[in-house]
Amino acid sequence: MRDFSHDHSALALNTATLGHNVDGHGAGWAPERIIDACAERGFGGIVFWRREIGGRAVEIGERARAAGLEVCGLCRSPFLVGPLALPSRQAVMDDFRASIDMAAALGASCLTICVGGVIEGSHSMRESLRRVADLVAEAVPHAAQAGVSLALEPLHPVYGGNRSCLVTVRDAVDMCEAIADPVLKVAVDVYHVWWDLSLPEQLRRLGGSGIAGYHLCDWLADTRDVLLDRGMMGDGVADLRAIRRAVEDAGYAGYCEVEIFSAANWWKRDPADVLDICVERFRTHC
Amino acid sequence: MRDFSHDHSALALNTATLGHNVDGHGAGWAPERIIDACAERGFGGIVFWRREIGGRAVEIGERARAAGLEVCGLCRSPFLVGPLALPSRQAVMDDFRASIDMAAALGASCLTICVGGVIEGSHSMRESLRRVADLVAEAVPHAAQAGVSLALEPLHPVYGGNRSCLVTVRDAVDMCEAIADPVLKVAVDVYHVWWDLSLPEQLRRLGGSGIAGYHLCDWLADTRDVLLDRGMMGDGVADLRAIRRAVEDAGYAGYCEVEIFSAANWWKRDPADVLDICVERFRTHC
Repeated sequence: MRDFSHDHSALALNTATLGHNVDGHGAGWAPERIIDACAERGFGGIVFWRREIGGRAVEIGERARAAGLEVCGLCRSPFLVGPLALPSRQAVMDDFRASIDMAAALGASCLTICVGGVIEGSHSMRESLRRVADLVAEAVPHAAQAGVSLALEPLHPVYGGNRSCLVTVRDAVDMCEAIADPVLKVAVDVYHVWWDLSLPEQLRRLGGSGIAGYHLCDWLADTRDVLLDRGMMGDGVADLRAIRRAVEDAGYAGYCEVEIFSAANWWKRDPADVLDICVERFRTHC
Repeated sequence: MRDFSHDHSALALNTATLGHNVDGHGAGWAPERIIDACAERGFGGIVFWRREIGGRAVEIGERARAAGLEVCGLCRSPFLVGPLALPSRQAVMDDFRASIDMAAALGASCLTICVGGVIEGSHSMRESLRRVADLVAEAVPHAAQAGVSLALEPLHPVYGGNRSCLVTVRDAVDMCEAIADPVLKVAVDVYHVWWDLSLPEQLRRLGGSGIAGYHLCDWLADTRDVLLDRGMMGDGVADLRAIRRAVEDAGYAGYCEVEIFSAANWWKRDPADVLDICVERFRTHC
């Protein structure tokens, strides 16, 4: 297991940690300012959200690399199915391909996929997952052509109804095995998997080459809002060392990406302080 | 699979469906009035909460059986570990035994166990589950003596931090196998397990004799409160038939217990209407 106590070059920032994924939150720093703040502190990577990028993908990607940061991801695909998805298959696939194209222009190594919830009226997670697999399989050649990995991200089961019918690493690995293309991988996020004691065995099935990313935060014992009340590493109940051990034992050696949605706490603080604390907690608690 | 379309004698009411588990909710019907209302409608069983019973366990149990209802459970043990548990091991075990004694006096076939969240400061679900297993194993002889089964209830992973470090049927079956006493069983609740596609294989490990109860409700796609916004069967995204098939294929042939926590909807309605709708939905959607 890697020792981060004196080296945080494997640390990456997901800009959601500064409130950049939801309108009206955070301090509103421009991508350039975040890039500089991360580079000054020795972060190794950065992950943006589409809403920050607009038409400037190439420019922002080059700016990040010039500052010494790898763009290790882009958030995210549209919801593919369920109540929050666009109304037609065509609209979903068009936006899915546009998100892949943006990741490619940015030079991001992967695009995160949030699959969307159970298809309305189906009452069936299985049927919904079959539809997801169809859509993902259709996007795979486009992603391969673009040189972008697709990172299937199983979300916490609390989101099963509306945001993700993919709720376990097991189900994500099953989908990867069924589609069987090296461009399709899995993102492992502490918030979504911390409760799953079968994680080590599922990640062994996947192997390190199948893990597209590892996302850090913590699960607060008294979580008040399941969407926007994530904890800083060390403030919650997740066994962060055990989870990273499972990820690394499977063969992963990539970035550890801090991604904290926290409307009532971290998004209200000075981003400079938040970044400093991310570095400190990464070294001491992860 | 049993056909309930013209027979709801397997239907049981958990009185939480009428708001009886939380102060200040529901219409406040006395146990006798609920017993009569269930018996009139042809329910087969009823499950009470300790707070309704007080010192009247023997009397209420006899009243239910005289009306033709089986008392098929009592809710519930105290939290055994975690932030909501009583402050000492002694206090927890005393209250655990008191809850077993109340179930015996009521003539209830089982006592539901909600194990409590991750032990504060441990950052470890595994360590917390080991402590739970110690406490449950200590209570098993008392339960056997009292003739009451203990129903380990894995709760939804959203409660992992504070209410239950036991969040999957898999982990519950593991604990049953480790303790290996026929008095220790598992309760399967749609709300907590609907997202788990490994349910059939885990229930096969357990077998019908290891299933202490099957609890019905639905998971609303737009759940607003993870504690008190459960849905009526048919109003959500759970595959109720598939879940019951898994339970029955494992060998379970007992009651199907409706347990709907719903502060903003069902608890505000006339209990008589709620009970009528439970019967109708049981016949058509479960």
